[in-house]
Amino acid sequence: MATSGKPIKCKAAVAWEPHKSMSIEEIEVAPPKDHEVLIKMVASGICRTDDHILEGLIANTKFPVIVGHEGAGIVESVGRGVTTVKPGDKVIPMPMPMCGECRCCKHPYANICAKNEFGKFTGLMDDNTSRFSCKGKLVHHFAGTSTFSDYTVVNEIYVAKIDDAAPLEKVCLIGCGFSTGYGSATNAAKVHPGSTCVVFGLGGIGLSAVIGCQVAGAARIIAVDINKDKFAKARVLGATECISPQDFNKPIHEVIVEMTDGGADYSFECVGTTDLTVSALKSSHYAFGTTVVIGVAPAGAHLSFDPMLLLTGRTLKGALLGGLRKDCGPKLVADYMAKKFNLDELVTHTLPLEKINEGVELLRSGKCIRCVVTF
Amino acid sequence: MATSGKPIKCKAAVAWEPHKSMSIEEIEVAPPKDHEVLIKMVASGICRTDDHILEGLIANTKFPVIVGHEGAGIVESVGRGVTTVKPGDKVIPMPMPMCGECRCCKHPYANICAKNEFGKFTGLMDDNTSRFSCKGKLVHHFAGTSTFSDYTVVNEIYVAKIDDAAPLEKVCLIGCGFSTGYGSATNAAKVHPGSTCVVFGLGGIGLSAVIGCQVAGAARIIAVDINKDKFAKARVLGATECISPQDFNKPIHEVIVEMTDGGADYSFECVGTTDLTVSALKSSHYAFGTTVVIGVAPAGAHLSFDPMLLLTGRTLKGALLGGLRKDCGPKLVADYMAKKFNLDELVTHTLPLEKINEGVELLRSGKCIRCVVTF
Repeated sequence: MATSGKPIKCKAAVAWEPHKSMSIEEIEVAPPKDHEVLIKMVASGICRTDDHILEGLIANTKFPVIVGHEGAGIVESVGRGVTTVKPGDKVIPMPMPMCGECRCCKHPYANICAKNEFGKFTGLMDDNTSRFSCKGKLVHHFAGTSTFSDYTVVNEIYVAKIDDAAPLEKVCLIGCGFSTGYGSATNAAKVHPGSTCVVFGLGGIGLSAVIGCQVAGAARIIAVDINKDKFAKARVLGATECISPQDFNKPIHEVIVEMTDGGADYSFECVGTTDLTVSALKSSHYAFGTTVVIGVAPAGAHLSFDPMLLLTGRTLKGALLGGLRKDCGPKLVADYMAKKFNLDELVTHTLPLEKINEGVELLRSGKCIRCVVTF
Repeated sequence: MATSGKPIKCKAAVAWEPHKSMSIEEIEVAPPKDHEVLIKMVASGICRTDDHILEGLIANTKFPVIVGHEGAGIVESVGRGVTTVKPGDKVIPMPMPMCGECRCCKHPYANICAKNEFGKFTGLMDDNTSRFSCKGKLVHHFAGTSTFSDYTVVNEIYVAKIDDAAPLEKVCLIGCGFSTGYGSATNAAKVHPGSTCVVFGLGGIGLSAVIGCQVAGAARIIAVDINKDKFAKARVLGATECISPQDFNKPIHEVIVEMTDGGADYSFECVGTTDLTVSALKSSHYAFGTTVVIGVAPAGAHLSFDPMLLLTGRTLKGALLGGLRKDCGPKLVADYMAKKFNLDELVTHTLPLEKINEGVELLRSGKCIRCVVTF
């Protein structure tokens, strides 16, 4: 049993440089400093953003690094000043922290705490040092979470205590992918009962958006993908209709406008291509349609469209983590435990940490919805 | 005194073809048919959209035509089946009708009734005929209102009965320009008390947005224009700071982000250029900023920007008539009568109908905020 005062030796998936597979290494994890929490990881989903780092698509990332930001675990020890969790607590290290002091944290609904690591990618803790080392070299943190490690150290502002009975190999998805899709529907778009929704792209995020639309009471959920293998799962999760753009000889937004008496109430872009965002916007009804951008477009992408689409009363917005805050994590876990939604369907593969690169390949090939690594 | 049963001969400003001044002509106005209302016009503002028609910028417009869509008058007579107004009532023929039956009218907040004339520009009444003729030729209606005429015929679904004591030469602005700017702040953006707002462009719409921000309780209203002559009036109406992009050697959004601790809560584009829309978007704060597009960009314009601006939690939306419905007209008139806002400051020029082309020139030269034509 590790203590808060001594370094731990354990296994982690280290990415030494971009464009290469991760290596399972023995690393040393320094004990938590003030306001930090040492977490023994139990499970972590592999998210597309982790893969973006591995592929070198995100500038400023510091290598070597331990990625992973969709995990769940148990508090091993805490540094001085930590008041919200204690050893033995089940927790999710949410990649969107809450410092409680910045303009976003004090805002009634904003969620991008000024202390978040996205965009900055310092790869370091608050004191500008890392808690990870391997073979004598400093290894960087990622997204404030670094969940692809037996043990990780996280600032308390990232840590959300959850229900003791929660199955961590499932609720780890609440750390990122599930919350991103689900929150985009329930929180960012605020889907209303009886409405018509269209979800473009049926990966883990898109299917989570389908779940969000269904929980919010949408009457119609039209799921769109060119891969029809995704349709069965979409239907299980709430889609009322599934269509492939390849089955029509006109633009998909025209098909949807016809299907929906002029357009949907809400549309969701869950792939990350700007053309699809424009299709989603055109699929929404003038005067009241709302389109939420969820997919991350490649760096340098430009979204370009006729501004009349907006002037005629449409809304276009985006959100990270579905606009949810760290404190939404425990509530989502409680909702899951109360069977308000079905998360288990999203976890299609489970692998031990040693096979994490196989999980990345499953993600890249589109063969999994979510692959969860266990420790 | 005209009756509902006989044609009326009266004066109107007829636009015979694009790119030419209007001509003051004697026209014949047919009596109202079923569900139609004959209105004796008292005053009408000259709006930029009227000028767009005169300049031939809006496709599908049928000439000859009587434009004007920001008027107020008194009901002269009504056709069969009209139940909501009677002769003698003061009314505003709102260019955004309410049929009460379409998807938008039944929606809790949408405002673009399926029977509106914008975009369709049939120039005709419901029975596909016109009530106007001149020198034996059919003259088209515009926007369902055609307010540049001593008398006009309007379908009842356009007509909003207002307070009998309202000064029509002022409240006519509620028919379009004022409502567009004011509603964008109070209704489309839903500006909240204590917030920071930025208004780009200080014409009639922009100044109305300033008023809306002020009435909604904004703590800071930053008014932006390259014409500093507009600043004095903006301050009278509620602007707390006025800045010109020409006074800075860096992009105006960077100036505003610095002024506002990371960005505004709300920004408004009131000019109609896509570059300015992007500036407005970049001027708003990530995680919670909302940008409202009010200005009408030229046909063929494309709005183009980095989608990451949205993904990091911004909202971009647009609205016609500030997202307000016909039934908001009487309420705005009541608010004006209760001195909730100052409309009089927007009316800088008043001219008789005979001088309407001088009014158009004042608008084009930027020398007036609003020129009102009286009958």
